[in-house]
Amino acid sequence: MGLVVQKYGGSSVADAEGIKRVAKRIVDAKKNGHQVVVVVSAMGDTTDELIDLAEQVSPIPAGREFDMLLTAGERISMALLAMAIKNLGHEAQSFTGSQAGVITDSVHNKARIIDVTPGRIRTALDEGNIAIVAGFQGVSQDKKDITTLGRGGSDTTAVALAAALDAEVCEIYTDVDGVFTADPRVVKKARKIDWISFEDMLELAASGSKVLLHRCVEYARRYNIPIHVRSSFSGLQGTWVSNEPQGERKVEQAIISGVAHDTSEAKITVVGVPDKPGEAAAIFRAVADAEINIDMIVQNVSAASTGLTDISFTLPKAEGRKAIDALERAKGAIGFESLRYDDQIGKISLVGAGMKTNPGVTASFFQALSDAGVNIELISTSEIRISVVTRADDVNEAVTAVHTAFGLDSDSDEAVVYGGTGR
Amino acid sequence: MGLVVQKYGGSSVADAEGIKRVAKRIVDAKKNGHQVVVVVSAMGDTTDELIDLAEQVSPIPAGREFDMLLTAGERISMALLAMAIKNLGHEAQSFTGSQAGVITDSVHNKARIIDVTPGRIRTALDEGNIAIVAGFQGVSQDKKDITTLGRGGSDTTAVALAAALDAEVCEIYTDVDGVFTADPRVVKKARKIDWISFEDMLELAASGSKVLLHRCVEYARRYNIPIHVRSSFSGLQGTWVSNEPQGERKVEQAIISGVAHDTSEAKITVVGVPDKPGEAAAIFRAVADAEINIDMIVQNVSAASTGLTDISFTLPKAEGRKAIDALERAKGAIGFESLRYDDQIGKISLVGAGMKTNPGVTASFFQALSDAGVNIELISTSEIRISVVTRADDVNEAVTAVHTAFGLDSDSDEAVVYGGTGR
Repeated sequence: MGLVVQKYGGSSVADAEGIKRVAKRIVDAKKNGHQVVVVVSAMGDTTDELIDLAEQVSPIPAGREFDMLLTAGERISMALLAMAIKNLGHEAQSFTGSQAGVITDSVHNKARIIDVTPGRIRTALDEGNIAIVAGFQGVSQDKKDITTLGRGGSDTTAVALAAALDAEVCEIYTDVDGVFTADPRVVKKARKIDWISFEDMLELAASGSKVLLHRCVEYARRYNIPIHVRSSFSGLQGTWVSNEPQGERKVEQAIISGVAHDTSEAKITVVGVPDKPGEAAAIFRAVADAEINIDMIVQNVSAASTGLTDISFTLPKAEGRKAIDALERAKGAIGFESLRYDDQIGKISLVGAGMKTNPGVTASFFQALSDAGVNIELISTSEIRISVVTRADDVNEAVTAVHTAFGLDSDSDEAVVYGGTGR
Repeated sequence: MGLVVQKYGGSSVADAEGIKRVAKRIVDAKKNGHQVVVVVSAMGDTTDELIDLAEQVSPIPAGREFDMLLTAGERISMALLAMAIKNLGHEAQSFTGSQAGVITDSVHNKARIIDVTPGRIRTALDEGNIAIVAGFQGVSQDKKDITTLGRGGSDTTAVALAAALDAEVCEIYTDVDGVFTADPRVVKKARKIDWISFEDMLELAASGSKVLLHRCVEYARRYNIPIHVRSSFSGLQGTWVSNEPQGERKVEQAIISGVAHDTSEAKITVVGVPDKPGEAAAIFRAVADAEINIDMIVQNVSAASTGLTDISFTLPKAEGRKAIDALERAKGAIGFESLRYDDQIGKISLVGAGMKTNPGVTASFFQALSDAGVNIELISTSEIRISVVTRADDVNEAVTAVHTAFGLDSDSDEAVVYGGTGR
């Protein structure tokens, strides 16, 4: 029995009852002989309430102070959780990100972890304690200021601690049963995935799956920490994310992991770009200088008659205004004709290892979309993913059609396995 | 223009509007050329809400975790206050007790300050920032754990920082105009005191005045930091607490500072104690071992016939049960007959320097109580204070009568000055 890192999200500790339920679960792991480190998020809506307060006192909350404010949320939940565990007769100590040795850079509101030095956690464990650690927060290496890790930061805290403490597994407790072959709210027949590789999980996360964030999976892959995503409301096995499949599923592993969708992006089309070297670079330099992450990029075939082409790319809707402004400012230097902005798009992605060596996958994917009457606007592929952009209205139908076409529906006999043994 | 420490209590920063109002006030001080350090309490009822949550998860909140929980309150208010100041175009940085260098012992929930090493505050000030510091909290010297300073801790934080930074003044902002000659809710004609000595303020605080806590005044006296108690809702001068009176009031300073009262105490009478050496010591050893602070002590004259005497003392009502239990356990060893517990008492105290050298004060005090028909149960005196215990029901009438008798009423021509020039 080794060391286990457990992470509980805000919905699991939304109130006193939730905290007591989670405390029992933690004590059970301890009773089973594990050393237990728990990473906890802020209770329920605490973070939103704090953000609301910040907006009331200042329209542009400052980075450093905003982090100081938000980290109060985990401080509350972790202290309450430690108390609840003590009340069950077990020893527990809570630690802030700083006390737990989560060292970050100085980029407030979205700091990156530089190092983890969990000396106090190790001591607490050696003394027989359960260690409770505030998720989402750290301390900056240079200025010793409190930082936050940005969206999904608590998952990253958990994986980083698991890596630094050489944990057997990092358990991510959430309000769903695991990772599904598609979003169960859209696809009624979506199935829970028992095991998925880091690579496929990375693609699903990048393609709109919300269960685990890309960054957290990336960290786990780098340090080879198995993640077990499971429900805090049941005792069921959830989804294992690791290098090697758990149990006996190796041979029969389907090469298609799931279908992800994302309606949070918008599409910008730069119209009438002179088709000469350096134009695309100038466009994306302007966007990058505004610190905007873009997703898919497609350049149309240039019209021979005009020597002009169009370049389209997708990006988070929230960044749309900033990108348009940046491009407008650079219009003279770049020399395009106009900009088109479209936020009524959706993206559907099929993810699975070995896809590229199975041409049938791509064909089946487009066939399924065609049969469902879904029009495709952009296409992008990777080693283990095909993504298309469609109208936002078509997304649910498209996801459901693709899910069925690849035999992922829960009442199918078995998932379709291309190439015999899969990977 | 030197360095000013300002402390704002929870009622001054109860909501976003309050925080913005306080921010303006702080910026005004900065504009007047001061270096400004601000100590802030948790917003309004935050601390009570956190205590309520703690009680829901565990009937006996643990010291260390309870401190971790409560300190979230100041973290929220200080970050919001820093944001509000930045929004007014001034630079501000917030600091936890630990970051501000407030080093304490390890007694959770009521830690004492051992040292203050405000290096980061000094740096922030030198860089032109307003420094916002979380009140009520520190970090333990040995274990580096978060501690809280107990009731009124934020005032103590403010005075301690003022001492460590060699501030000109420590301004304590509150929801009243200053220190009054009596509680204005009881005595309608109570007057605001313009200046009071540390010694008199200490006696008032020890006698039930709630505006400043004993501990904070003690700290200010030790380091000779003038305190200015004033309202955060007005621009009026409040009450100065210092060694030397401010302004021109020196000669005419009345020797009577005010009348305090306290109905938070109970009286325990140990009946039938053998009148021999060591008995009183045994009784108060038993009480002290239970970590109970007692206030007044009176030993009756022993009845010659029995050789037995009664010993009465007062203590906070909240400690009553614990004291009775401790004494019952020690009954065999001590050898008294019985215990009487009375929580329907009140204490009235007259405070003023030079009282002892003016015998007329004591006589007038008892005359006033007698004229008001108030019966006296216990008497205790110090260099600058006379206190009596009465029935709780008599307290308001007694305070009002004494206040009038000593010419403290606001429509009197002038306060009575014994011995001509006072002190």
